[in-house]
Amino acid sequence: MARLSTILRLKRFNSLEGIYSKYPGILQNVPQLHYRQYHNHNEDGKSNWWKIPRNQKYVLLTTGTIAAVALTWSTHLRNSSVNAAEKYDPNIGKKHDEIRKDLPTFKMDDITKHNNEKDRIWVTYGIGVYDITEFVPQHPGSSDKVMLAAGAAIDPFWHIFQQHNTPEVLTLLESFRIGNLNAEDKVSTADMGDPWALEPRRHPILKPAAQKPFNAEPPPSILVDSFITPNEFFYIRNHLPVPEIDEKTYEIEFEVEGVKKVSKMTLKDLKKLPQHTVTAAVMCGGNRRSEMDAVKKVKGLFWGPSAVGNAQWTGVKLCEILDKMGVKSDEVRHVHFEGLDTDPTSTYYAASIPLAKAMDPRGDVILAYEMNGEPLSRDHGFPVRVIVPGTVGARNVKWLGRVFVSNKESDSHWQQKDYKGFSPSTDWDTVDFSKSPAIQHMPVTSAICLPSPGEKVKVQDGYVTVKGYAWSGGGNRIVRVDLTCDGGETWHVADLEQEDVVKAPAGRSWSWTLWTAKIPVPSRAREVEIWSKAVDSNYNAQPESFRNIWNLRGVLSNAYSRVKVQITK
Amino acid sequence: MARLSTILRLKRFNSLEGIYSKYPGILQNVPQLHYRQYHNHNEDGKSNWWKIPRNQKYVLLTTGTIAAVALTWSTHLRNSSVNAAEKYDPNIGKKHDEIRKDLPTFKMDDITKHNNEKDRIWVTYGIGVYDITEFVPQHPGSSDKVMLAAGAAIDPFWHIFQQHNTPEVLTLLESFRIGNLNAEDKVSTADMGDPWALEPRRHPILKPAAQKPFNAEPPPSILVDSFITPNEFFYIRNHLPVPEIDEKTYEIEFEVEGVKKVSKMTLKDLKKLPQHTVTAAVMCGGNRRSEMDAVKKVKGLFWGPSAVGNAQWTGVKLCEILDKMGVKSDEVRHVHFEGLDTDPTSTYYAASIPLAKAMDPRGDVILAYEMNGEPLSRDHGFPVRVIVPGTVGARNVKWLGRVFVSNKESDSHWQQKDYKGFSPSTDWDTVDFSKSPAIQHMPVTSAICLPSPGEKVKVQDGYVTVKGYAWSGGGNRIVRVDLTCDGGETWHVADLEQEDVVKAPAGRSWSWTLWTAKIPVPSRAREVEIWSKAVDSNYNAQPESFRNIWNLRGVLSNAYSRVKVQITK
Repeated sequence: MARLSTILRLKRFNSLEGIYSKYPGILQNVPQLHYRQYHNHNEDGKSNWWKIPRNQKYVLLTTGTIAAVALTWSTHLRNSSVNAAEKYDPNIGKKHDEIRKDLPTFKMDDITKHNNEKDRIWVTYGIGVYDITEFVPQHPGSSDKVMLAAGAAIDPFWHIFQQHNTPEVLTLLESFRIGNLNAEDKVSTADMGDPWALEPRRHPILKPAAQKPFNAEPPPSILVDSFITPNEFFYIRNHLPVPEIDEKTYEIEFEVEGVKKVSKMTLKDLKKLPQHTVTAAVMCGGNRRSEMDAVKKVKGLFWGPSAVGNAQWTGVKLCEILDKMGVKSDEVRHVHFEGLDTDPTSTYYAASIPLAKAMDPRGDVILAYEMNGEPLSRDHGFPVRVIVPGTVGARNVKWLGRVFVSNKESDSHWQQKDYKGFSPSTDWDTVDFSKSPAIQHMPVTSAICLPSPGEKVKVQDGYVTVKGYAWSGGGNRIVRVDLTCDGGETWHVADLEQEDVVKAPAGRSWSWTLWTAKIPVPSRAREVEIWSKAVDSNYNAQPESFRNIWNLRGVLSNAYSRVKVQITK
Repeated sequence: MARLSTILRLKRFNSLEGIYSKYPGILQNVPQLHYRQYHNHNEDGKSNWWKIPRNQKYVLLTTGTIAAVALTWSTHLRNSSVNAAEKYDPNIGKKHDEIRKDLPTFKMDDITKHNNEKDRIWVTYGIGVYDITEFVPQHPGSSDKVMLAAGAAIDPFWHIFQQHNTPEVLTLLESFRIGNLNAEDKVSTADMGDPWALEPRRHPILKPAAQKPFNAEPPPSILVDSFITPNEFFYIRNHLPVPEIDEKTYEIEFEVEGVKKVSKMTLKDLKKLPQHTVTAAVMCGGNRRSEMDAVKKVKGLFWGPSAVGNAQWTGVKLCEILDKMGVKSDEVRHVHFEGLDTDPTSTYYAASIPLAKAMDPRGDVILAYEMNGEPLSRDHGFPVRVIVPGTVGARNVKWLGRVFVSNKESDSHWQQKDYKGFSPSTDWDTVDFSKSPAIQHMPVTSAICLPSPGEKVKVQDGYVTVKGYAWSGGGNRIVRVDLTCDGGETWHVADLEQEDVVKAPAGRSWSWTLWTAKIPVPSRAREVEIWSKAVDSNYNAQPESFRNIWNLRGVLSNAYSRVKVQITK
């Protein structure tokens, strides 16, 4: 029997995929609605969103969708070099709550009729009435989603997506103004709760790239302090609000496409199975994005080089569970992982990996319930997350709710419309997400963590000490890290700190490598630029420049790490 | 029971490893002694080397060793920028056959006494007597091998290694001259056969990088003509003379370290097992070396971009054979493959791969007896070679004589002292081969095969058509090939011809990818430089420049392919 949330999904409105595909940054830029999971019965009264009748939710969701569309358009405008809306009105204030005496007044009943192209497409915000008909076709790939929002108020969603309240979005919206809403019909948001009220506390050392959803990384210098990253310093990458999950009622569903039986497993069940510990780095697909962004703007969270950490994960080998279920490996099917974190349309976070990876005992895919010997924290996926060693963080799904062996790859936004690489000349007008494979294994990379850019560095006996990390996806071991401070004239080989080759052989080397190099600095140098270049056991080396690997989403940002420092004697 | 050749090996002199480690080019630059295999009983009388009594062989081999040392030193000198011996004597001629009246005359009995450092180390060549004592310690890593040659004639080996007869080597040797050999004691080579007499005929389209051993590649433009490379156009990379093997008596030995039983399998036995066909590219570790050499000299065969081919290999899965033998996979052991081609010290060509690769059914390692539906040709390993898909050609051992599951990696020259990558600043004085792993999987690469460098290219409707191949080791699929002709300002994505993803999924994508791109050329351009850059399913991209991946052996030469062409209207 499918779980309750699955039933809800069947009734859910179409997801925001179209929006995401064109403006994948949206989920990173705006706070999200928080759907309580069926597992979370802890009614604390702080939020009453859940008490709103289903049909009212429909209206809210619909209007929310169009709100999201407006936001993404505004994002688009902000990133477009020639666009009138960039010149937003600095006095925009709350014009949507002011009567425009030059325009007519409508009742909500009037608005509702304008829910199709022929009759024009209207929405309201505050007491503003807007005709967004022209906007709909201008939003390729998601006009159907815009139509879901036709003829309704966007206020409830904008209450949640508070970052919509930017001058750009408001100016854009106001440019569509055609009238005033009858004051009595104004949609109130006073009874809506805060989906972010239940977020966990985080260590202050984590520097947020975004607050809602929370995304943060530690300072790079902290990373190289220990081979195992302490839990509280481990970067956090949330796509949605952190779900509150009760360990007592928590269950994971296991299902195989075409097989009617659905297995369930509690945390207790999981802990009874043979325990497997794997030391693995987890890295965000957008790690080091800021370095790529410096070459040319990309869309995405402004990650430094610390969206990575290395931990010991303990749990159960997925292949052993699937094996008991009678699953046989093949080259076609995928294993889907669905999180218990959901977006406003009740779409759960989801991703998939090839079944062959999941079924390979050497793939070391585990359902982990411990991180460095402690239960997972809420931010890291309590009570269970997937660890897919060697694979981009986005597939290491947290708050695991369901494991589904499917005949095809996940069609989730994060699998299909995000986390893919493209040619440097592919832009948002030409991008076709179906043409690139979803990132699985990550390419070889390294980063200089010490010294920091611009740091004044003391030369000792003619040498400067440089530290950093290196990692390659697919279990490929780091075999060398080369450093130069003269633009590649001379290279210095770093000392590596890494797992023993017997414990972590090539093909199964999931941990990162920390490295230290002493590099000679020319005696009269005042400033040097240090480069690091890692080489893995396939002898793949990092590419030199971000320019030639640039991609519009700023993922796979694995060019040489280059840090310019000041030299003091 | 160990095969006869194994017994011979037990009695063999130490191998030339030391020489190879310092001067790995030696086997590529000189013809080799041809040891007839125990399988080859076809006494055709063309060669009588085999009839020489064992103790005489000892002398020949010993002197051969020192000859090789001299050669390698000369190679060293040629490649060293500041060295007196570079100024070789243009009139060196056959001075080793001329009496130096200013020097004393010795009998061979005198020479024999000078076989240690204390008594000085002498050798003879022609009627020249040479004191090479000072040379011995100057040859790091192989002084023990030099000592094997102490007190004997080098003539027999120089008869085989005919390329020793260069002005550089002779000048170097003559600089050690201390006397004349009693004419009667001169060692004759008149009764020695030619180890190269039985080499197969090759297609004239193959352009040799070396004749003895034969190493040759087709023109790049031929490569892109067909997804499957025709057998006769497939590059040939031989390390030693091609052995003559009689199918009727041919056997492969299978042995597991610590297990006394040795299994044997004839070709007939092999053909009774389930047949497996795999389409896989095989690429030489030195492919595209000439492009790296252009940046800074490297040691090795001057390969263009065609030391690669793509074929359908048919044979038996190695994992099935090993499984039947009761072998269980682990992360420590290696599978050694020994060829029936041997060097002058009777060292067989050998290499090894991790047992985990061999035992993985998804690794597709096969003992192949067919290439594109035909029995293997002699040059490609008749009757059986190993195909290790995704792995450097050097591990795809030809003329397979023995499969040995060992507790450690092969200690062969080709595994330990060659086919490894190093930092660009590592030179022959600082290199430590033990510090780098043997190449297994190859990194991502691509090459422009059409147009050719310098070609006059006609622009059609503003476009130029470019063709080439791309490949990545480890079964990683090529997901994109980007082309630019404006130094990376704009990139154009090529159309790919490759195996279907279901047939060859990522992780098991062994074939190469052919690609075609139409790239726009600026209307006033007279000359453009086209670059190609491949990206694989791990999103590893080729590095930009050879300069920053340069290594002294010129292997792993996978930087952007850059071809400059003339534009005609």
